[in-house]
Amino acid sequence: MTLKPSPRIADFVDEQRLWRRHMDMAAIGAIGTDGVNRQALSREDIAARCMLIEWAHRRGYRVETDSIANLFVVRPGRNNTLSAVATGSHIDSQPSGGRFDGIYGVLAGFEALECLDDAGVETDRPIAVVAWTNEEGSRFAPSTMGSSVFAGARQLDDFLNVTDSGGAPLHAALATTLDSMAVDATYTVAPPLKAYIEAHIEQGPVLEARGIDIGVVTGIQGVRWFEIEITGRSAHAGTTPKANRSDAMAAAIDAINRVRLAIEDGDERTRFTIGRMEVVPNSPNTIAEIVRFTIDLRHPDAVELETYANAIRSICDAGAGPCGISCRELLSQPPCSFPELMVDTVESAATSLSLSTIRLPSGAMHDALFLASICPTSMIFVPCRNGVSHNPAEFAEPSHLANGARVLVETLVKLANNEQ
Amino acid sequence: MTLKPSPRIADFVDEQRLWRRHMDMAAIGAIGTDGVNRQALSREDIAARCMLIEWAHRRGYRVETDSIANLFVVRPGRNNTLSAVATGSHIDSQPSGGRFDGIYGVLAGFEALECLDDAGVETDRPIAVVAWTNEEGSRFAPSTMGSSVFAGARQLDDFLNVTDSGGAPLHAALATTLDSMAVDATYTVAPPLKAYIEAHIEQGPVLEARGIDIGVVTGIQGVRWFEIEITGRSAHAGTTPKANRSDAMAAAIDAINRVRLAIEDGDERTRFTIGRMEVVPNSPNTIAEIVRFTIDLRHPDAVELETYANAIRSICDAGAGPCGISCRELLSQPPCSFPELMVDTVESAATSLSLSTIRLPSGAMHDALFLASICPTSMIFVPCRNGVSHNPAEFAEPSHLANGARVLVETLVKLANNEQ
Repeated sequence: MTLKPSPRIADFVDEQRLWRRHMDMAAIGAIGTDGVNRQALSREDIAARCMLIEWAHRRGYRVETDSIANLFVVRPGRNNTLSAVATGSHIDSQPSGGRFDGIYGVLAGFEALECLDDAGVETDRPIAVVAWTNEEGSRFAPSTMGSSVFAGARQLDDFLNVTDSGGAPLHAALATTLDSMAVDATYTVAPPLKAYIEAHIEQGPVLEARGIDIGVVTGIQGVRWFEIEITGRSAHAGTTPKANRSDAMAAAIDAINRVRLAIEDGDERTRFTIGRMEVVPNSPNTIAEIVRFTIDLRHPDAVELETYANAIRSICDAGAGPCGISCRELLSQPPCSFPELMVDTVESAATSLSLSTIRLPSGAMHDALFLASICPTSMIFVPCRNGVSHNPAEFAEPSHLANGARVLVETLVKLANNEQ
Repeated sequence: MTLKPSPRIADFVDEQRLWRRHMDMAAIGAIGTDGVNRQALSREDIAARCMLIEWAHRRGYRVETDSIANLFVVRPGRNNTLSAVATGSHIDSQPSGGRFDGIYGVLAGFEALECLDDAGVETDRPIAVVAWTNEEGSRFAPSTMGSSVFAGARQLDDFLNVTDSGGAPLHAALATTLDSMAVDATYTVAPPLKAYIEAHIEQGPVLEARGIDIGVVTGIQGVRWFEIEITGRSAHAGTTPKANRSDAMAAAIDAINRVRLAIEDGDERTRFTIGRMEVVPNSPNTIAEIVRFTIDLRHPDAVELETYANAIRSICDAGAGPCGISCRELLSQPPCSFPELMVDTVESAATSLSLSTIRLPSGAMHDALFLASICPTSMIFVPCRNGVSHNPAEFAEPSHLANGARVLVETLVKLANNEQ
């Protein structure tokens, strides 16, 4: 006689359904075969939100929003006066993004709710799936607006007059988005939360390279964004002698070389990227008048991060030869560590499902960073192909996505029933 | 008894009229107080052409054009079967240009025609004032399209499908321009020409610094334009380890450093400018996928210019680490020397007017470069403030502009009467 194991909740995760939902979302803002351009508060973002709301209504879930248009899909618990357990991520993408970054955390959360329905499981606390507004910050800077306002780290007013590159203000895009969503009138999801868990593709190569199912995320490396502006004098490229040149491009290259020398230390943990540069007037035979570029600097160690940030400021303070130079810090986020108990809960959920795990810090910033300041937080990573993200080539296996959703639902149930 | 000197033709140059015409032209495409944005075949270029045509009609001059919309204002001579003497420059400006570059050569030529009328002087040959189409090349690349087609160095067909940054094709802008100009039906201005003289602000600091009235231009330095494209792979700035990065910006900075090392030789004659750079996707937290930049390289010595151009190609051929690199040559123009007889004619005209002169090569490319390949050619430079050009701060004194027009009319009369 063989013993038939009793069905686990995680067995009700439906890999095909989860994959189909990803493909349905990827059709909104699709570019080329596999790319997605679904920037924050755009027509595409709104369409994706409305599709999620439609799915939520079919399941009878509550749908809520707040002043910055964070979108909450709530599956009630036995006692809805208890603070909710939340999970989620974001719907918006990079201008040339992929099909999994952000949206996976939302869809894995939604799959967890459907899985609980299908398994006939009630929880003590309500569980909320959240799509945080404007995580990417590529249309409206800075990033992680929705989660930072929710957590009280930033004020909505700070962002309302931010404009996109076409000059459209955030407050107008926000109003359009809020008007477009069919939501319930009252809020049940607000701080404090019982806990927050975010599922995400790793966006790095470690899990795939080592053949690991689940990354148990221990924290998030710190990040600083700088915008350096060099001001020269536009003049004719052919007639202006060296002594008369204030060439903003030449000065920008010099400044970048000095910054590289100060920062590129051979330490694999130091991440340094110049991703944006704008040149005025940007004409081949005119010496550049203005060159503006960004620096994205990351490190898991707060002291080292601060040292490098100071080096960037010192280099700017030292001037740029015949040109002017200014340095504006767009974003400063120290590294964070998730509570040991939360990390353990994720890890033991994965282990109970016979999935292999490693602990690792997150190389990317996530909405979880802000949630970590107001409630116990952790994250679940799943492998993605070649570690590629923010790119149409971004890919994650359906089975890997489903593994993450299984760990997520097991973790959520424990948290929502106070079993950890 | 005092001898009253007989009036010279050049005394009929009207400094106020010439200045006023500059200000009238500067009002078309004005940016800020002193800037001009009057790019080739734009609405502003067309409006400026129409104003010149209106002035020409009031004087009874012929107005002609050709297939690339070069605009000719012709003052007939005694024998109009003789090939014309031509003078002129261009009406189009840089996107952020000034009030004198190009337009001065057109207006000095027009002033010379009016001066001949006012002095009651006839010439043997007709004299044509030309506005060459698209000298700047900032809207439609490459530059000097009109003069290169006129001189047979390039074919109109090569340019018809060139598009501006908004995707508008040149053939459409050309058709609109041709339709807008009220011109006479038949052509009298076509190669061969008897001679070509172009008046221009120096666009460099030499004349002003030395207090010289007139620069007698001996030739034009050579110029090469390259477009370098680096192709990487866009990926997340925070999660992608160094070993997995194909960072097009990092590779572009490396390539630029190698080029600078090869080219910046301390020789004041070597002019090297990176004036345009475009980054895709141009987002702070995404590693750049494509970086595209131009190199403008100039030298008066053909051998040295070729050596440096070869160095740029070698650097591109050597690759860009994990990224792809390609090098496209957009423009290659060897240095040219003007005929001694033409240089002498300009110099003696200036000397006869008691104006101080020096001989110097042109640092900028001009339409005169192409004319020099089909007829005896020279140029007249006048001082401009601080040598600044391609900039709203560009300025030339009214008296300096008038000096140039005086030398021009004396030179034109000699050439049109076969007196040199």
